Amino acid sequence: MKAFNFLLKDTKGKSNTMVLDKGQGYQTTKDMLEITGDYFNLLKYGWGTSTLYKRDIIKDKNELYHQYDIKTYPGGTLFEIANKQDKIDEYLQEADKLGFNAIEISDGSTYISLEKRQEAITKVKEQGFYLLTEVGKKDLKKDSELKSEDRVKLIQTDLDNKSDLVIVEARESGKNIGIFDEKGNIKEDDFETINKNIPQNKILWEAPQKNQQIDLILKLGADVNLGNINVNDIISLETLRRGLRGDTLGKV
Amino acid sequence: MKAFNFLLKDTKGKSNTMVLDKGQGYQTTKDMLEITGDYFNLLKYGWGTSTLYKRDIIKDKNELYHQYDIKTYPGGTLFEIANKQDKIDEYLQEADKLGFNAIEISDGSTYISLEKRQEAITKVKEQGFYLLTEVGKKDLKKDSELKSEDRVKLIQTDLDNKSDLVIVEARESGKNIGIFDEKGNIKEDDFETINKNIPQNKILWEAPQKNQQIDLILKLGADVNLGNINVNDIISLETLRRGLRGDTLGKV
Amino acid sequence: MKAFNFLLKDTKGKSNTMVLDKGQGYQTTKDMLEITGDYFNLLKYGWGTSTLYKRDIIKDKNELYHQYDIKTYPGGTLFEIANKQDKIDEYLQEADKLGFNAIEISDGSTYISLEKRQEAITKVKEQGFYLLTEVGKKDLKKDSELKSEDRVKLIQTDLDNKSDLVIVEARESGKNIGIFDEKGNIKEDDFETINKNIPQNKILWEAPQKNQQIDLILKLGADVNLGNINVNDIISLETLRRGLRGDTLGKV
Repeated sequence: MKAFNFLLKDTKGKSNTMVLDKGQGYQTTKDMLEITGDYFNLLKYGWGTSTLYKRDIIKDKNELYHQYDIKTYPGGTLFEIANKQDKIDEYLQEADKLGFNAIEISDGSTYISLEKRQEAITKVKEQGFYLLTEVGKKDLKKDSELKSEDRVKLIQTDLDNKSDLVIVEARESGKNIGIFDEKGNIKEDDFETINKNIPQNKILWEAPQKNQQIDLILKLGADVNLGNINVNDIISLETLRRGLRGDTLGKV
Repeated sequence: MKAFNFLLKDTKGKSNTMVLDKGQGYQTTKDMLEITGDYFNLLKYGWGTSTLYKRDIIKDKNELYHQYDIKTYPGGTLFEIANKQDKIDEYLQEADKLGFNAIEISDGSTYISLEKRQEAITKVKEQGFYLLTEVGKKDLKKDSELKSEDRVKLIQTDLDNKSDLVIVEARESGKNIGIFDEKGNIKEDDFETINKNIPQNKILWEAPQKNQQIDLILKLGADVNLGNINVNDIISLETLRRGLRGDTLGKV
Repeated sequence: MKAFNFLLKDTKGKSNTMVLDKGQGYQTTKDMLEITGDYFNLLKYGWGTSTLYKRDIIKDKNELYHQYDIKTYPGGTLFEIANKQDKIDEYLQEADKLGFNAIEISDGSTYISLEKRQEAITKVKEQGFYLLTEVGKKDLKKDSELKSEDRVKLIQTDLDNKSDLVIVEARESGKNIGIFDEKGNIKEDDFETINKNIPQNKILWEAPQKNQQIDLILKLGADVNLGNINVNDIISLETLRRGLRGDTLGKV
């Protein structure tokens, strides 16, 4: 039973919360999960960080997360590196061996043709992975050239191709990228173009900053899908979703 | 014995240092306390985070902190939620069962009448808790409408009512709130109005940023009461208090 | 064997990476090292933090780091405090007893004559410590009065005196100090004056911010010496060095 449970309304969160692991130790992760394990369901080993682990440690970490029904996957950048080297099959095989049960497909740092993207999506789904695809460029200049209409079109194509969830890129910083301006505030027009055209449960918004999490919760509700959450902010985010912090108290 | 002890003058800190726990794991906390346990005496489980813990874990964490003579309490926001639901008695009973030995009363996010506030203060003191009350609004606009004179009056009333320590609100960010401007710098007039009217040992200044800690130490001395200290900054703050960091070396 | 090893080119890093420890617990450090231990070789207990440890704990932490061939040393500020009290001999003796195998000599917060500096350098080297010396003032105003030419001259003198590595100061913040402007961006002229006059393998650039690490890697190559790395950013930095993150992918 949870502490002070008489103060809380019963909630059945159906939202997705994706946490960013930048290389946290095994015991620290285990210890963290005893408190946070019920409050997120997707875990990304950021960009190419997975390659710096010994195989045993990453296997153990994946198992640990799975005990809490948290799906794990390597960052989309690693997929891009494998794709550039024409080693997608080896990549998926190794991911499977290491215990990852989800895959992210992105083209944030490299060019990938639509045909190639679709092919990869099909392959990942056939092999039984949960699939996230990402829309957006990591280079701020290139990202700013992407129109919201283009993002919508790509999201729709990915969903037609059976992507389980489409991520709107915001990186670890959340500034000057995707729907966020240089201060990290939401650009309303860009946000609305995506929001009105895509079913909410199919979008995961990367929102690393607290004010971004608050804004999206107040706009779209407590169950909005949020990602790139820092390991130290998991509990904070859950309190925001439940109206247990000043910013959302009485508003969700 | 401490390392390099011949370099230090003997200090008998009488100051209060309040640390903000945003949901840190049990083992990580235990491990942290072996190094930091001598350097703070108050621990706040931020806002409503306590409700996301299993009861056993929060009991164990409270016990751990008490072993180092650190008083623990749930954030003032949780008190406000209990008050809104007319469940203050249940709240205090549960807090006691879970091993909290301090309580914070605040009205940062909701309206509470002065009578109600006084009534709650009396109740908390009667039940033997250490009592902190807080002055300030979490909403930046509402907070900016609070004049320093009003803050002083409320602080004095709380102290007359036997609050042990009054907190000047600055949130986790320390920006655009209380005595701090939008960059986190001290607003001299607002600071002075409080400082000259209230005994220093009765005020705890929330000061999450390093420059705020430095400024208050240089203004009020090494023993100034400081709060909302990040778990990773406890040692840094203690070095600032003792002149062991460039910013205060030779000045305290 | 490392995960996804078929995606990586073989690298033999000869670079120095210096990590800043602000008071991390023993078990947390041990756990962290299982993932990060291969990716840095110098560890600084920031400024005077060493004096807040019990002697046993700091000995144990030093041993732990040494198991990964990581050299450890107390921050330069502690050297300055010892120097001010005329206790350099005691300082070096205690450092040795506690298991430190490197020493930093700096004058960031106090005035030390060139003769005194040289004398200390000689003493430290004679006793077999690895020696880092630092150039720069912690006070932003004083630091801004230091011309790049003066920095170069001091660096050259230190190297003539057999300092193993010279640190260019940037503090924990990396703003408005040394080669960085108030936003943390590189000041090209100041950077170039140092860079063109000193062999790259003899300089360690403090670069706590991600954008600083990227800029220096893109300017000077993957093997540039970088310092004041946050314990949570060790893996991130290594991915930047290896082109495993969007910012340097295909560029290193």
